[in-house]
Amino acid sequence: MEQMILWFELHQLQQQYISALDNDRLEQWADFFTEECVYEIVPRENEDAGLPIGIIYCDSKRMLRDRVLSLRHANIYEVHSYRHMTSGMQIRVIDADTVETESSYVVVQTLQDGESFVYQAGRYLDVVVRTPDGWRYKAKRVIYDTSRVATLLATPI
Amino acid sequence: MEQMILWFELHQLQQQYISALDNDRLEQWADFFTEECVYEIVPRENEDAGLPIGIIYCDSKRMLRDRVLSLRHANIYEVHSYRHMTSGMQIRVIDADTVETESSYVVVQTLQDGESFVYQAGRYLDVVVRTPDGWRYKAKRVIYDTSRVATLLATPI
Amino acid sequence: MEQMILWFELHQLQQQYISALDNDRLEQWADFFTEECVYEIVPRENEDAGLPIGIIYCDSKRMLRDRVLSLRHANIYEVHSYRHMTSGMQIRVIDADTVETESSYVVVQTLQDGESFVYQAGRYLDVVVRTPDGWRYKAKRVIYDTSRVATLLATPI
Repeated sequence: MEQMILWFELHQLQQQYISALDNDRLEQWADFFTEECVYEIVPRENEDAGLPIGIIYCDSKRMLRDRVLSLRHANIYEVHSYRHMTSGMQIRVIDADTVETESSYVVVQTLQDGESFVYQAGRYLDVVVRTPDGWRYKAKRVIYDTSRVATLLATPI
Repeated sequence: MEQMILWFELHQLQQQYISALDNDRLEQWADFFTEECVYEIVPRENEDAGLPIGIIYCDSKRMLRDRVLSLRHANIYEVHSYRHMTSGMQIRVIDADTVETESSYVVVQTLQDGESFVYQAGRYLDVVVRTPDGWRYKAKRVIYDTSRVATLLATPI
Repeated sequence: MEQMILWFELHQLQQQYISALDNDRLEQWADFFTEECVYEIVPRENEDAGLPIGIIYCDSKRMLRDRVLSLRHANIYEVHSYRHMTSGMQIRVIDADTVETESSYVVVQTLQDGESFVYQAGRYLDVVVRTPDGWRYKAKRVIYDTSRVATLLATPI
């Protein structure tokens, strides 16, 4: 039962996270993280080679907020919508207030021409911690399989 | 715990709904709705512009049944199969017997030539009510991102 | 509540199964099955026509292990990664220790050129039994919609 409740809480966090991204509530994005945090997007070949070099690296909630602000103001990217699907969440309990999770994701994108296609697939490696406000991401590493990423990786995954 | 049970019940309803559609049990489709109900499919640009004009609009269980009957008899559409994936379900409790939910969906289609591709992506906006037979859809609005929809939208989403 | 616990246990089994396949832990694959088991991959048109002829048929855990061993050694297939998404799991209780489940799946593949696409869609028909080690597959039938399967079906679905 305890195991089911833990799964449910982490599943809810993930579903809220992707729901915010998929329904253009980007201003909520930073709030899924702790003040000090790591968010990065890394191609799989770098991860496999032990190279920590990714295409996005943020290490505080403030950087995440700034990122969304500039997205909203700069508006350099083509209008699009995402739909995130996730699966296979595995949970590794570190201590009473810390877990590591691994999940697969697939993002389907629709551009202004109106066609929908698989935009990116990969996995999330998360460190999730219990805070007074509920579970939050202390680290989220997005490791993508898809190296031919079609547009600027402007919006969060 | 109560929150988890509510989530589970609504999740089950959704999984049964898409399982019926994906496994050609269309005759069950209307039974997921209340007698008086709304089912509509609306392109995202109309939704965003506040235009209530969609490509399908049914406002009773009987209309849903008629729709399936004509699909079975007319047989005008190319044989295909759907696989619905859903994610990100958010629940808003209205009262003890009514909730509103929002979910993302992606439909993968396989045509007779045997290729599978993303057919449509979008979101469900549902009003779900508790009845003596369990939770049922009082309203299901299907708002699709994909404006280049490849075939006649003959079968329900 | 009992229904939710059963769902949770079967859901966890499925998520562990696809997580092992998607993260290249193929050596764990056979352990999701009982010693005597059936694993087969059948095209939908054969299933619909009542023809039991598929493209893969294994009837013991040992055969599953051998399959992975030859995959690792022969290395004849192009390097790729899978991401399995599942949905719509329906559960039919046969007796206290046996259930049948049906689920939809979509597999997204990324090849070395770095593009991700829908590789295969279909459904799982499973017989799952309770063992001292937890729930295990006694039978897993993979019935695919997609008849134009792009590469050798070398790795398990």
